[in-house]
Amino acid sequence: MALKMDAAALNAFLGTDFPQLTGQFAVEHADEELLIARLHVSESHLRPGGTVSGPSMFALADVAIYTAILSNIGPVGLAVTTNASIDFMRKPEAGRDLLAHCRLLKLGRVLAVGEAMIFSDGQEKPVARCSMTYSIPPR
Amino acid sequence: MALKMDAAALNAFLGTDFPQLTGQFAVEHADEELLIARLHVSESHLRPGGTVSGPSMFALADVAIYTAILSNIGPVGLAVTTNASIDFMRKPEAGRDLLAHCRLLKLGRVLAVGEAMIFSDGQEKPVARCSMTYSIPPR
Amino acid sequence: MALKMDAAALNAFLGTDFPQLTGQFAVEHADEELLIARLHVSESHLRPGGTVSGPSMFALADVAIYTAILSNIGPVGLAVTTNASIDFMRKPEAGRDLLAHCRLLKLGRVLAVGEAMIFSDGQEKPVARCSMTYSIPPR
Amino acid sequence: MALKMDAAALNAFLGTDFPQLTGQFAVEHADEELLIARLHVSESHLRPGGTVSGPSMFALADVAIYTAILSNIGPVGLAVTTNASIDFMRKPEAGRDLLAHCRLLKLGRVLAVGEAMIFSDGQEKPVARCSMTYSIPPR
Repeated sequence: MALKMDAAALNAFLGTDFPQLTGQFAVEHADEELLIARLHVSESHLRPGGTVSGPSMFALADVAIYTAILSNIGPVGLAVTTNASIDFMRKPEAGRDLLAHCRLLKLGRVLAVGEAMIFSDGQEKPVARCSMTYSIPPR
Repeated sequence: MALKMDAAALNAFLGTDFPQLTGQFAVEHADEELLIARLHVSESHLRPGGTVSGPSMFALADVAIYTAILSNIGPVGLAVTTNASIDFMRKPEAGRDLLAHCRLLKLGRVLAVGEAMIFSDGQEKPVARCSMTYSIPPR
Repeated sequence: MALKMDAAALNAFLGTDFPQLTGQFAVEHADEELLIARLHVSESHLRPGGTVSGPSMFALADVAIYTAILSNIGPVGLAVTTNASIDFMRKPEAGRDLLAHCRLLKLGRVLAVGEAMIFSDGQEKPVARCSMTYSIPPR
Repeated sequence: MALKMDAAALNAFLGTDFPQLTGQFAVEHADEELLIARLHVSESHLRPGGTVSGPSMFALADVAIYTAILSNIGPVGLAVTTNASIDFMRKPEAGRDLLAHCRLLKLGRVLAVGEAMIFSDGQEKPVARCSMTYSIPPR
């Protein structure tokens, strides 16, 4: 199945519909199997000690899974997160961006489930794992 | 068991150790049973349509459960979230702050578990429910 | 809002539609606010050391939240669990039944969310906490 | 890092320490990257309509992640599940065993995190996804 939106289209959509995210998040790659999103880490994302905050990692996973759904169904603005489960496993490296590697596990008529593994850029072991469920409006 | 930190002490701790949260979050109430934290909703917390973003609700739950732990064990800066599960159940009301009502379910030697129910200020039905586990450093 | 099924009706439904659960689970109480379900703990639910197994606690939470939904919408056999999150916080007491205290947090058109706190019978501190989401078929 | 227990050793351990699981669960494969466990589906695991019950899938994920931890740390009987999150995504096929493909995401000093993707035997799309955290006793 061909994607309905590629990385460029997803970034354009984020810029238009979520202007407050501009400059923070970008979709780096999107194909049928895998979407990669980046958090450009800046001062506002940090906690004492230089580590990236939990809410910032949550936001990155949300952007990754949401855009992975849109890449399949097109620019539907009304999919909403109904559930999220996140495991924080390692401290992110100071001074590095975070990358989320996202796979869609289910894309149903009313529910979609995706999973994101979050890495410090250049590191092999994940700092966090997140799964989210979205409710999709009738198409 | 008397609390080691009351609401005023928790707010002072947040101001000193988490200056980037200042003005956004406040502990309104803390006793042995219940802690209430407020998110002063502003433009930066909103998504299109005027609803509060998921990451902002996650951040509020995190502040509430973290401070509920500190109220019991004192100003230990190193407790870290290891797991979070959140259900988003209703759309927050536009133009209202959010309140998190938090209860600690377990305060063990190495792990603590808390739960927060999140409400739009003045509303009866919760907009979200969140449970989090924290790893507590050796005391 | 009056309940569509009381505890007796829920137990009769379980006996008819889930005969393999008969004798293991019972609804003890159901009103608009709270449903209480019991797991009659027997040898088959135990792990080494006499503690109740995780899957048995999961099953109890599932029965409690499912019947709480049915008490509100009537004997619809097709609601399915889509997500569960469970925290195991204390070791259940050997030789005691388990009770689940369940509250529905949301009963929407397509999704319902409930939460169950699980106790060893007669004990005050919960052994586990569970939240579950159900997908409800069109009515 | 070489495994401390291979599939045969893990099955022997389950048979000795968890005799009530004998015949239901088996470890089919274990290497440094991946462990595969099987649920031999029988009448006792089914719900009306011939589908495998949620608690049975939960139990399979628990066996898979637990044995994946043991394969790395050896036959420690006291690791306990502290948290589980599970997404039920598709109905298992009637009359087929279930397989759990498990990966350890973290193996720390006190906490381990693993994930299991559950499939109906021979099918490509997962029926469920589960992540679990275990507390590991001091070694």
